[in-house]
Amino acid sequence: MNQSIIEAFEPLFYPKSLAIIGASTEPTKFGNIILSAIKEIGYGGKIYPVNPEGGEIRGMKVYPSLKEIPGEVDFAILTIPATLVSATLEECLRRGVKGAEILTSGFKETGTPEGRRMEEDLTRIAQRGIRILGPNCFGIYCPESGLTILPGQNFSRETGPVGFLSQSGGLCADLGQIAKGLGIRFSKMVSYGNGCDVGACDLLEYFFADEKTRVIAGYVEGLEDGPKFIRILRENRGRKPVILWKAGLTATGSRAVMSHTGSMGGSEAVWHSALKQAGAIQVYSAEELVDAIYAFLYLPANAGLRVSVMGGGGAISVAASDSLERMGLDIPVFSSSVLKKLKTSFPPVGNSLKNPVDLGNPMIPPSMLRKVMEAAGEDQGIDTLIIIQILFYILFQVRHRLRMDDRPLSQFSFQPELLKACEDVRAKYQKPIILVLPEITTDARLIDLESEWRRERDVYQAAGFPVFKTIDQAARALHHLVAFQRAKAG
Amino acid sequence: MNQSIIEAFEPLFYPKSLAIIGASTEPTKFGNIILSAIKEIGYGGKIYPVNPEGGEIRGMKVYPSLKEIPGEVDFAILTIPATLVSATLEECLRRGVKGAEILTSGFKETGTPEGRRMEEDLTRIAQRGIRILGPNCFGIYCPESGLTILPGQNFSRETGPVGFLSQSGGLCADLGQIAKGLGIRFSKMVSYGNGCDVGACDLLEYFFADEKTRVIAGYVEGLEDGPKFIRILRENRGRKPVILWKAGLTATGSRAVMSHTGSMGGSEAVWHSALKQAGAIQVYSAEELVDAIYAFLYLPANAGLRVSVMGGGGAISVAASDSLERMGLDIPVFSSSVLKKLKTSFPPVGNSLKNPVDLGNPMIPPSMLRKVMEAAGEDQGIDTLIIIQILFYILFQVRHRLRMDDRPLSQFSFQPELLKACEDVRAKYQKPIILVLPEITTDARLIDLESEWRRERDVYQAAGFPVFKTIDQAARALHHLVAFQRAKAG
Repeated sequence: MNQSIIEAFEPLFYPKSLAIIGASTEPTKFGNIILSAIKEIGYGGKIYPVNPEGGEIRGMKVYPSLKEIPGEVDFAILTIPATLVSATLEECLRRGVKGAEILTSGFKETGTPEGRRMEEDLTRIAQRGIRILGPNCFGIYCPESGLTILPGQNFSRETGPVGFLSQSGGLCADLGQIAKGLGIRFSKMVSYGNGCDVGACDLLEYFFADEKTRVIAGYVEGLEDGPKFIRILRENRGRKPVILWKAGLTATGSRAVMSHTGSMGGSEAVWHSALKQAGAIQVYSAEELVDAIYAFLYLPANAGLRVSVMGGGGAISVAASDSLERMGLDIPVFSSSVLKKLKTSFPPVGNSLKNPVDLGNPMIPPSMLRKVMEAAGEDQGIDTLIIIQILFYILFQVRHRLRMDDRPLSQFSFQPELLKACEDVRAKYQKPIILVLPEITTDARLIDLESEWRRERDVYQAAGFPVFKTIDQAARALHHLVAFQRAKAG
Repeated sequence: MNQSIIEAFEPLFYPKSLAIIGASTEPTKFGNIILSAIKEIGYGGKIYPVNPEGGEIRGMKVYPSLKEIPGEVDFAILTIPATLVSATLEECLRRGVKGAEILTSGFKETGTPEGRRMEEDLTRIAQRGIRILGPNCFGIYCPESGLTILPGQNFSRETGPVGFLSQSGGLCADLGQIAKGLGIRFSKMVSYGNGCDVGACDLLEYFFADEKTRVIAGYVEGLEDGPKFIRILRENRGRKPVILWKAGLTATGSRAVMSHTGSMGGSEAVWHSALKQAGAIQVYSAEELVDAIYAFLYLPANAGLRVSVMGGGGAISVAASDSLERMGLDIPVFSSSVLKKLKTSFPPVGNSLKNPVDLGNPMIPPSMLRKVMEAAGEDQGIDTLIIIQILFYILFQVRHRLRMDDRPLSQFSFQPELLKACEDVRAKYQKPIILVLPEITTDARLIDLESEWRRERDVYQAAGFPVFKTIDQAARALHHLVAFQRAKAG
């Protein structure tokens, strides 16, 4: 069963050759964008552009029809008028094409009887031996084979552990960009649109079976078979985190869903409880989806929920405490022996060491933070460390107060020292460490701070430490781990 | 009464001369940072650095004590050891100083009887004729008079309508930075710390009385007199929006509050209902605080809550609908006459025009958006317009697809055309327009996109249109207007 679903998806995810039917020289047309994207991302197989007008696109010969292509064609990408789609699929069947993605819209989502009928035709064709993705979709991104979605030419070429299924192509396009800087990498990302053949249930099953996928995420509006989807989740509960954005749950959202993919949104309360019972992690926005994926990539899914928070500035400690507690985390006071030892290293006023730890002002030398990290590492009552540092103040100190030069922050002894402390403490105590680096500049002229921020983030990420911009995001990320652990426990 | 509170605060906010007691040449010391900050931001009055060691700082003569200063001193900034504070205040009294801010910590917030006693001394001194801010605070930012808080030398020099009171100095420091790029400008921002004399109640009364303050915002942990604070809010309900972040409401948060400012957090449920009944707008994080202030600056407080949302990409419409409805907004379907007219301008498939309006793909020509804006303007059932545009795709189209050059986005005909459409539609129909420009790039190498984003934001802001990065933020901003309107209605 598991093996069969892997095999069934082989021609979609790993085609050795593909035809782009409706390829175009016109740069604003889908038929040009998708061809450029697949070419630029470095697809390794044979590409056959197809267009009755013939000619050449980007140095490639254009075939007037499928028939004229000399070699085998595994996979077809269709971006032609809706009325021509079913006849072209018939031709694909005759030619032995095993998979197709249909970018064209104008089917079920139009809400017309004609659109519905045309889509039913596609479903029937699929049953005769070709797997169909779409219509009304942006296609497949699979870095391993070099496939990419409609505007996805600058997606990462690295493969990774996230499998993403989405009824929306636009969200795939956005997520591919957002993912890049965050080090989120995909096994496959699939925009399945109206889902006339391949739907959310198939893809969910596939991702559970696929050994390359460790974290599953999805955006669904309506589902072709809700009970089946929930059953698949339940049968696999606790095996892999499944992060799900079920959209269209409000009255207006549901109306928008109908226009978008011609499906039904459903009731908020029913979905919430069904997903919870099935062990899925429910999210409510693109930002929350990204944060949840990020959390499972950078934190062990069984990370403990008793947290120590350390930073400089009382409001930061107070806000962190409120935020973490609201998300179901625990911030226990350090044990008396740890606290007693810690107190010997700090002055008696201007700080608070109990946990949350407030070191008094936002410009904290790493040597001081290291002492608190050691204490939190040692304390048996603490599982996870959160360090809050506002880079702006460090840069401010370095550049303005100490009148130093404009070298990037990473070249000062300051940040490498903190990174080293994080690495040492993690190695010694085997506890996860999370960085919160708030970005407080918004000025167009201070864009270099954002550059520094991204460079710093990349340094920590490369060392395996997750970096968030706000404490709320970190709290929510840990909250998702809580949800997964509860799901596993049953 | 109102006039008297204005007069009482005069020496704090508009001093003609000030002494910095504890001024220092050492760049990491508060006594140096505050002096530099006030000098650099351009305080127009006379500054007298005071330090028993004498000498010179930044070309200014240092006086060994207050007594030696030749002219009058209106205001004193104290950054000296806690044990010297009360004696120095006695000296201030003798010298006729009418206001003082005490940056020094080590008082009530230490939780020791000694700290509490020392703070009670300060309260008694205040009653003898000097207004005291602090201790354990970062001071006053008042761009009109050129005062600024501890690390606030690069705060904006422009004055504006926001009055901000905060128990936390760090939050003031952050907010001053965050505010800059968002065009949020302050009448006064006051970090009052432990509040031994001037506290949240006084400042709230002041801001209600102050004609220069149109929007009041605050961060409070504990309150010296909770019932009085609520009474002031109730008496002034609906006069000005009051945005309040009451922190320390969870058990852990409350513990952190005790260490931070030595006050009591209080119960979440009690505060929530008291603030709601008193007409205040409650927020739960720094980000939400900023968004709420921003909303009241850029939107009329009586803006209507029936919204039209337009963008390209189905998931965007669905997500916007869910988000807005969850925040209490209404997205009515366009009236049949408006819809009928609108339909004549667009192809029959690939879009959805009912409201939310999905124009099919994220690269929408402004001429198309203008048509939808006109429809929403005309429709009697719509009060407010939200336009969603992802700049990344526009840049992508301009630069990569059309092979154009690297000029900033603002120089292309594209964006000025959209801005013009916004201005025309606003002028014609008198309905507020909100821009949502999601930023989907996170890559360190794509920092120029963030630069473009900030430039675009500035252009719209300068024309009076608020710009948000996410639909959730826009929805929450409108939600705050809802809260204010309900408070006004009583």
